[in-house]
Amino acid sequence: MNAFTDIMVPEFLGTMILLLGGAGVVANAILPKNKGFNGGWLMINFGWGLAVFAGVFVSLKSGAHINPAVTLGILTSGAEEFAPGVAADFPNMLIYWGSQLVGAFVGAVLAYLAYKRHFDEDADPAVKLGVFSTGPAIRSYGWNFVTEVIGTFMLVFVILSFANWPGDLGPLAAALLVTGIGASLGGPTGYAINPARDFGPRIAHFVLPIPGKGSSDWAYSWVPVLGPLAGGALGGLLAAAVAA
Amino acid sequence: MNAFTDIMVPEFLGTMILLLGGAGVVANAILPKNKGFNGGWLMINFGWGLAVFAGVFVSLKSGAHINPAVTLGILTSGAEEFAPGVAADFPNMLIYWGSQLVGAFVGAVLAYLAYKRHFDEDADPAVKLGVFSTGPAIRSYGWNFVTEVIGTFMLVFVILSFANWPGDLGPLAAALLVTGIGASLGGPTGYAINPARDFGPRIAHFVLPIPGKGSSDWAYSWVPVLGPLAGGALGGLLAAAVAA
Amino acid sequence: MNAFTDIMVPEFLGTMILLLGGAGVVANAILPKNKGFNGGWLMINFGWGLAVFAGVFVSLKSGAHINPAVTLGILTSGAEEFAPGVAADFPNMLIYWGSQLVGAFVGAVLAYLAYKRHFDEDADPAVKLGVFSTGPAIRSYGWNFVTEVIGTFMLVFVILSFANWPGDLGPLAAALLVTGIGASLGGPTGYAINPARDFGPRIAHFVLPIPGKGSSDWAYSWVPVLGPLAGGALGGLLAAAVAA
Amino acid sequence: MNAFTDIMVPEFLGTMILLLGGAGVVANAILPKNKGFNGGWLMINFGWGLAVFAGVFVSLKSGAHINPAVTLGILTSGAEEFAPGVAADFPNMLIYWGSQLVGAFVGAVLAYLAYKRHFDEDADPAVKLGVFSTGPAIRSYGWNFVTEVIGTFMLVFVILSFANWPGDLGPLAAALLVTGIGASLGGPTGYAINPARDFGPRIAHFVLPIPGKGSSDWAYSWVPVLGPLAGGALGGLLAAAVAA
Repeated sequence: MNAFTDIMVPEFLGTMILLLGGAGVVANAILPKNKGFNGGWLMINFGWGLAVFAGVFVSLKSGAHINPAVTLGILTSGAEEFAPGVAADFPNMLIYWGSQLVGAFVGAVLAYLAYKRHFDEDADPAVKLGVFSTGPAIRSYGWNFVTEVIGTFMLVFVILSFANWPGDLGPLAAALLVTGIGASLGGPTGYAINPARDFGPRIAHFVLPIPGKGSSDWAYSWVPVLGPLAGGALGGLLAAAVAA
Repeated sequence: MNAFTDIMVPEFLGTMILLLGGAGVVANAILPKNKGFNGGWLMINFGWGLAVFAGVFVSLKSGAHINPAVTLGILTSGAEEFAPGVAADFPNMLIYWGSQLVGAFVGAVLAYLAYKRHFDEDADPAVKLGVFSTGPAIRSYGWNFVTEVIGTFMLVFVILSFANWPGDLGPLAAALLVTGIGASLGGPTGYAINPARDFGPRIAHFVLPIPGKGSSDWAYSWVPVLGPLAGGALGGLLAAAVAA
Repeated sequence: MNAFTDIMVPEFLGTMILLLGGAGVVANAILPKNKGFNGGWLMINFGWGLAVFAGVFVSLKSGAHINPAVTLGILTSGAEEFAPGVAADFPNMLIYWGSQLVGAFVGAVLAYLAYKRHFDEDADPAVKLGVFSTGPAIRSYGWNFVTEVIGTFMLVFVILSFANWPGDLGPLAAALLVTGIGASLGGPTGYAINPARDFGPRIAHFVLPIPGKGSSDWAYSWVPVLGPLAGGALGGLLAAAVAA
Repeated sequence: MNAFTDIMVPEFLGTMILLLGGAGVVANAILPKNKGFNGGWLMINFGWGLAVFAGVFVSLKSGAHINPAVTLGILTSGAEEFAPGVAADFPNMLIYWGSQLVGAFVGAVLAYLAYKRHFDEDADPAVKLGVFSTGPAIRSYGWNFVTEVIGTFMLVFVILSFANWPGDLGPLAAALLVTGIGASLGGPTGYAINPARDFGPRIAHFVLPIPGKGSSDWAYSWVPVLGPLAGGALGGLLAAAVAA
């Protein structure tokens, strides 16, 4: 196993493509003057789902986790491998996590560049942040946390009930699963269900010179990190218990 | 055959995931302040369809019925098995039905928790019930019954024309079939087409401490139970007749 | 070859299911008080596409034509068989056509029954007819004919470029092809692209006791019959020319 | 290798079908009085995606590029073949490009004929051009170019990360990839991501006798040609680097 080629490169690229598509569809739907402006929640769900589709294709070598909560869930399930030939252990998990976080950051920057002139338009600072990171419809840290736990639990439990890792489930099934979770459980918090997807772009929002940007809302930032991790861990544990 | 591991666990989990996704997408679409509020009927159709997708993945061992009308249809078709190694007989059907009902109840409770703060908002009591159970657009018990019979007939007849049980048809085909039936035949009654999907969550609505909730509409509750059972039985009979 | 079991039964059932789903989704979208009322054109496209999906599953034995223009296109392509063991000749084509027409009639009647109480509501007579049969957005028989030719040409040419009959292409690909044609070419005429789909339900509209119904618009009825037949014939000829 | 049958015919037909469906769905969504008028961005995304689906089926023999940026990306990736038995070299690329351009022109003309009476209606000249070719939401040649580069990079990089050419990825995956890119990255420029798709129809717009048509906006026309070519070349280079 070569950590660079077997984990870092595919996870970086997969999560980069995930965020390019995912942040992109939100930008299209909520930033002024876009052709997809006000395109609706289902468009956002399909946009994110198909970003998973594309991201899985480019990260098959590493099992296509592209989500720290998935990596953690595989670990808590007691599986031996994260991907063919890649041991499922704590050090490797940290390599996955780091690659995913950097990929998500870069993907969000690419989406920013694709929508540069629309970020230059006047818009509520919360809208501009919304392209990068999730925020609650009704702020309530405890219940927002619960929602993220449940959504990520569903994601990881379903994947691991059937497959060893997302790449094993396949791009289409992973995409449709995320599309469905977004439609079904995305209402209260905007479904991070992936710590890297939320935290990497939040850093991008913080550092990028976005005109008229506001707070990066760090006060909320732990919810879409710890909630998904808790949900992923639970999903892995239940999948292992059912298989036993 | 071990009833606990071969029927109860997978049917419970599959129907739980079905309702988590299914009740979830309705909550997103109709409860106040959700990000998917007013997301439209097609979003609800895809949300339910993809909840089937996820539910089938976790219940493949039991054939992925996750619907009492499907189990009944397999029985009326004269098939020998509900799933590999599971005899299609009346006692086993009752085990399927019980597991499905409990799974649907628990799934609806999970959806309630995911949307807890949105249930705390003011909304028409009928809207809050609508997250859990179906209700008619135009109340007319006889014709509502007919609509449920026809929708469930289509579901079960198509499945059994091609496959032995839904898991055999596969998660994607089952999902698309339900997505289509929802779009095509869901207008008058909200397409229960599954007694457990309607009755389990209705019990959840009855017992949960939902703020400002109203009646659980027990007067209507037999329609989405008996209609789907009748439709499923007809679907199984016709599939058997065609195959003969 | 047994015409009853190899052609009539599957084509009747497949086209019946097609119209149950297809007329159903239009009813949902345009008849008053439905839960999917005003659900949008994409919902109608997916509803029809997924009705094809279901219809193909129940008619695989006959090749899943469920459309006279497809049957004609296979004939003009010079293929030897309509389905495994079924000779592609003129007498068999007439058996296909008759079965499709009767199936479409019965499917439309079932959709009428599912939406009975919504047909009882006040609505523009053209809306009630619109559940059954297509009509032009801008009436212009010549150009409406051209639109139907082009849409059906695309359908039949794509199928026969790759497969021997729709069942050979498979339910999913047939469904997505029709979903796409509806989105892309359905604007001017409502995409009959299938003579049975239009003519059988038009007869149903004519004979059913629908409250407040108006004309069945027989003046237009030849367009969605002859246009699709011409387009299907062209599609078959071109597919054969390319393969040669 | 026979350039006529192995490249010209399939690429011509595939790109023709692509534009028939792609220009068609835009016509449906934006030209007056259509049944799909104002059908929304997601309908346009699925319409284009499913046009790819259909186009790939009829061009499998040539690898189903149907896009000059894809052909260029395969060349820059250093691959040996454009399709089975077709050498990946500059002369063959020009044959692909020419066939794609002519196919796109003819497909747009067919879409024009299908929507003839809707083009006869009064509408903003920019709307009528919008059926044929893309235009920017906010005109800014440099940033519009960047958006087209990024979108096409995503398309070509994902395809070549997994497959040798689009036909190898398959019709469904190619379709979903383009659907997703449209939702995610189509907001600023309308996602040409394909020089032939934009330039061929622009010529058609220029020469067709469309009532009330305005400028063909040649000033912008280089952006959706050079941007996609640059993005495709980058995608091919990165895919090759990752595989190395």
